[in-house]
Amino acid sequence: MRNLNENTITQAVINRNEGTQNERLKEIMVSLVQHLHSFAREVELTEKEWEVGIKFLTDVGQICSEKRQEFILLSDTLGLSTLVIAQNHRKPEGCTEATVFGPFYVSNAPELALGANMSEGVKGTPWFVSGTVKSIDGKIISNAKVEVWQSDDDGFYDVQKDGLDHFEGRAIFNTNEKGEYHFETILPDAYPIPHDGPVGKMLQALNRHPWRPAHLHFMITAKGYERLVTHVFKENSEYLDSDAVFGVRSSLVSEWVQHENGQDPYGNRHNTPFSTLQFNFVLNPIVETKK
Amino acid sequence: MRNLNENTITQAVINRNEGTQNERLKEIMVSLVQHLHSFAREVELTEKEWEVGIKFLTDVGQICSEKRQEFILLSDTLGLSTLVIAQNHRKPEGCTEATVFGPFYVSNAPELALGANMSEGVKGTPWFVSGTVKSIDGKIISNAKVEVWQSDDDGFYDVQKDGLDHFEGRAIFNTNEKGEYHFETILPDAYPIPHDGPVGKMLQALNRHPWRPAHLHFMITAKGYERLVTHVFKENSEYLDSDAVFGVRSSLVSEWVQHENGQDPYGNRHNTPFSTLQFNFVLNPIVETKK
Repeated sequence: MRNLNENTITQAVINRNEGTQNERLKEIMVSLVQHLHSFAREVELTEKEWEVGIKFLTDVGQICSEKRQEFILLSDTLGLSTLVIAQNHRKPEGCTEATVFGPFYVSNAPELALGANMSEGVKGTPWFVSGTVKSIDGKIISNAKVEVWQSDDDGFYDVQKDGLDHFEGRAIFNTNEKGEYHFETILPDAYPIPHDGPVGKMLQALNRHPWRPAHLHFMITAKGYERLVTHVFKENSEYLDSDAVFGVRSSLVSEWVQHENGQDPYGNRHNTPFSTLQFNFVLNPIVETKK
Repeated sequence: MRNLNENTITQAVINRNEGTQNERLKEIMVSLVQHLHSFAREVELTEKEWEVGIKFLTDVGQICSEKRQEFILLSDTLGLSTLVIAQNHRKPEGCTEATVFGPFYVSNAPELALGANMSEGVKGTPWFVSGTVKSIDGKIISNAKVEVWQSDDDGFYDVQKDGLDHFEGRAIFNTNEKGEYHFETILPDAYPIPHDGPVGKMLQALNRHPWRPAHLHFMITAKGYERLVTHVFKENSEYLDSDAVFGVRSSLVSEWVQHENGQDPYGNRHNTPFSTLQFNFVLNPIVETKK
């Protein structure tokens, strides 16, 4: 203990953590300390670089607020979020794939009736979204909680807008007895992740753009099923092949049908363009393991 | 890019960073992404655990301020600081060893004359510290900048005291033409690192105490020599074998001589106890590599 050096320090830290009572925490800390140290050793991290790292992480923490989660953004842009999601959702083929959560979810979105417009009064192209929620075995899932959130036509979420005192582009719907959901909103567009902070600076240093292809967020929960957090992406949207947060999955890319004019799914006539999307979700039942 | 999974994501992130113009940054990011992902894979990190990690790092960042650097504390308690210092200061035998910087250094400490008391008016046992600064080849180093900082008798640094409008236990001295430094202060005591924040919670979860053995911080700079950041530890101090930040080196443990009464090095008589410390520093010359 009094003669630690660059080779003995790792085991010394692991030994010091030996008394950890939570076995899982102990296991996590062993791996974390080993990889943290291996990284520093492998690149022969200098003191100056260490200082830059301390400053960077501090800046990431300091910019976080009720409305901004820069550490999630960092995890997303380093691919950690995609890795964690993937390894926690090894699902049977045919189930809807999960993707990154993102930093813009809000837990207290308003619950709206099916068919409601969750972007009332917001400028943009009207968009009619519908589909079903079923189990992988084909069973209809009624009363599934379908939480939806999206950016607006300019690429901003409601929580990014200063002084906005209500929700926009965000709602909770419940599937009907046929397992259907449907609602009205406006078309979201591709947008850059918030890049005026430390993660933006990092992307710039890495010569990476901050853009995400156009998408709509879903979180679907139903009793007896694995929670599904995912997006539906717009076919042919820019950045599908270079999403800043590594969120795109082929199975989640879908046609967002453009209509020059005509009748929307609710029977109303439009003389100006609108769009429609039909996307069906397939959930994975939780298999109870007998003890 | 559209079909990333838990196995392909790592290479995808590395490929995305391929355009990084700073070659050193690119190298660091490859290793960082690989180790970050390997850690998550190795422990099969769950989404819940990922959330706890995001929350922890956010808390660490949020508690940082002008006067508190919780990320340095985290690096220290995980042994990263000791590793980085050790691998950046592979010095010839006989040079004074370096150790952790700690979070309490302040760059604008007052410059005092040799012999001055840097803890004027602070309660505690008077302490007379002196020594020399030499090169490994025996050469006297005059005009070396000797920055010193320490906790008080209660284990607190000046920057931890609310409302204090001046420096205490902190000063800059310059060695004289004989390479000598000497000053007066008070004895510091063992103290816990700040443990009312997220790092304190972590130590508690790991069943670790936050204490450091009694020590005095030094940073010595002199033209033509490697900067030395180190401590001098008190022989027989508690926690020498379990320093919370892995900073102890045998060669830095020294006798802090106690005197019941008598004459101090400046010729003044004391009827109450005082202490003395003599510690000589040996610096490593920077060898100019011819190009």
